[in-house]
Amino acid sequence: MTTQAAVYRGDRTFTLESVQVPPPGRGEVQIDVAYCGICGTDLHVYLGHMDARVGPARTIGHEMSGVIAALGDGVEGLRPGQHVVVRPLDHCGDCPACRAGHQHVCHNLKFLGIDSDGAFQQKWTVPAHTVHPVPDGLDLKHAALIEPLAVACHDVARGRVAPGEDVLVIGGGPIGMLVAMVAREAGARVTVCEINAHRLAFARRAGFDVLDPRDGDAAAAVRAATGGKGADVVFEVSGTQPGVDLMTAAAATRGRIVMVAIHASKPQVDLFQFFWRELDLLGARVYRPEDYDAAMRLLAAGVVDCDAFITDIRGLEEIQAAFQALTESPDTMKAMIRIAEDA
Amino acid sequence: MTTQAAVYRGDRTFTLESVQVPPPGRGEVQIDVAYCGICGTDLHVYLGHMDARVGPARTIGHEMSGVIAALGDGVEGLRPGQHVVVRPLDHCGDCPACRAGHQHVCHNLKFLGIDSDGAFQQKWTVPAHTVHPVPDGLDLKHAALIEPLAVACHDVARGRVAPGEDVLVIGGGPIGMLVAMVAREAGARVTVCEINAHRLAFARRAGFDVLDPRDGDAAAAVRAATGGKGADVVFEVSGTQPGVDLMTAAAATRGRIVMVAIHASKPQVDLFQFFWRELDLLGARVYRPEDYDAAMRLLAAGVVDCDAFITDIRGLEEIQAAFQALTESPDTMKAMIRIAEDA
Ligand SMILES: [Zn+2]
Ligand SMILES: [Zn+2]
Ligand SMILES: [Zn+2]
Ligand SMILES: [Zn+2]
Repeated sequence: MTTQAAVYRGDRTFTLESVQVPPPGRGEVQIDVAYCGICGTDLHVYLGHMDARVGPARTIGHEMSGVIAALGDGVEGLRPGQHVVVRPLDHCGDCPACRAGHQHVCHNLKFLGIDSDGAFQQKWTVPAHTVHPVPDGLDLKHAALIEPLAVACHDVARGRVAPGEDVLVIGGGPIGMLVAMVAREAGARVTVCEINAHRLAFARRAGFDVLDPRDGDAAAAVRAATGGKGADVVFEVSGTQPGVDLMTAAAATRGRIVMVAIHASKPQVDLFQFFWRELDLLGARVYRPEDYDAAMRLLAAGVVDCDAFITDIRGLEEIQAAFQALTESPDTMKAMIRIAEDA
Repeated sequence: MTTQAAVYRGDRTFTLESVQVPPPGRGEVQIDVAYCGICGTDLHVYLGHMDARVGPARTIGHEMSGVIAALGDGVEGLRPGQHVVVRPLDHCGDCPACRAGHQHVCHNLKFLGIDSDGAFQQKWTVPAHTVHPVPDGLDLKHAALIEPLAVACHDVARGRVAPGEDVLVIGGGPIGMLVAMVAREAGARVTVCEINAHRLAFARRAGFDVLDPRDGDAAAAVRAATGGKGADVVFEVSGTQPGVDLMTAAAATRGRIVMVAIHASKPQVDLFQFFWRELDLLGARVYRPEDYDAAMRLLAAGVVDCDAFITDIRGLEEIQAAFQALTESPDTMKAMIRIAEDA
């Protein structure tokens, strides 16, 4: 069978190609992809930062939703026609992390859509253990937000956010906003710190307190708003040195700081504050299966205003333009590609 | 009543002075000090690093043991003649940390022996709530190790060290060695990383695996010794940039790193590793009352070979020489001052 796939060919270029799709093998599931969002990681690939990892002909994409087209031998508990999303992690099962039950941070983790082909194509074949059925009533466009929402659920779980706590989210991009929404649902009072005017406006419209660090001492503002205490939980989602400075300065004594951002360089960290005020820094990466369950529950509960959150939808043939628009405008919240023509 | 006190007068100088000691006030306990160890913090005071905090006429010292001499009005549950140690923390009771139950990291914490006079004097008067009776059979020289041992108990509790885990202690000074001993008692396999030859020899004699980072890649050595896993818990006690580099490199995926050292500058930290391998960094400062209980239990159980650990004991009149010797020789493990003439 021949279908359409967007293939990343290096140098900010996707080509639409007709690809041969074999039937799903043993233990595999073939999915008619409906929608696939563009992740920050996808943007990194497009910009050429990950060429060594993805190679010269990779179909990327993982924030997807779709409908099961066919099942390989030995797959149980799933059926063609079922609406699904994919948790795009393939672990080795045999490293120290897997053996300790931390499969999502497996030493040899394969990320589908980066280390193997992903969902910016009409038919995607994946291992059955990565497939999560979604409720039939859920809009497939909204279901494509489950993957990034599961990231946010994992982050908030790592931070052990409790009702009544004060939360500071540093960085109001898509993941930061989802973290803010999940933390609010967990019962926290949430402030979003951001410098982009459009993102500040988005956060304000979503009902959050906002903080622009260019308006003055952001840590002092957090303390003033919390009776001198500071933020019980801080999410560092900015990936910047000022964000790292703020995370320790704004945290309450005995507060938790969740490291969501990818810091490629080694920033300077005020380790004295960790000692002096017994702070916790908790790294958080991807998700566990239960984070997918939580994300579906929260999506069904209306925690995310999906239609406001998805700011750009284009067809697969416009994938190149969609990526280009994202690099040129930081005002987009979530850009999404419609893969199925009838979706 | 007039007794002898060592008074820090700035510029690496202690003077022995006769001081007037009023009877203990309401809620206070007066103690005949028996022994008082020299802490790293005391050495910082002696070297002039803390002149702004301690002022021009401070009696320092807090790693002490002694015998109750007199009780002020309203003190219950204690009696003269009782052997005691002091948990030298006076909290405000009213800040966000105190109100949240974290009195040991009170925003306005007064550390007895730094912010008020301490135990390098014959009679020390302290608030009753800081006094812990010790078992009668315990040698008062050994009891003076309870304070630093409580630090180690607090550090190991913060790290949630469990039986069978692999522990790496970076820095084999007095606190590092006590952390190693407490972690071993908790059932861990412990490796001590250190560069000072005398301290390496001390750690080896105490039965620990040792690692000299100048012999090669210390993180690789830890992984090799743990089947590729790395250390489940790392204690950073060195206060150095190489120590900070090693703490992330040597930690297992999902490992815990306990920040024991005081980092006065802001070192570069490999935050990517926190994200990628979901590490925890847990700051640890001083102790809670239950850490004193644990320290006494462990001391009674023989977890510390006290007579090997205490490498230098001098009388109060030799305090100046004791501090000078400590700055000149990093080979001393624990130096102690005998305060009571009959101790
Ligand atoms: Zn993603
Ligand atoms: Zn694995
Ligand atoms: Zn001390
Ligand atoms: Zn307080």
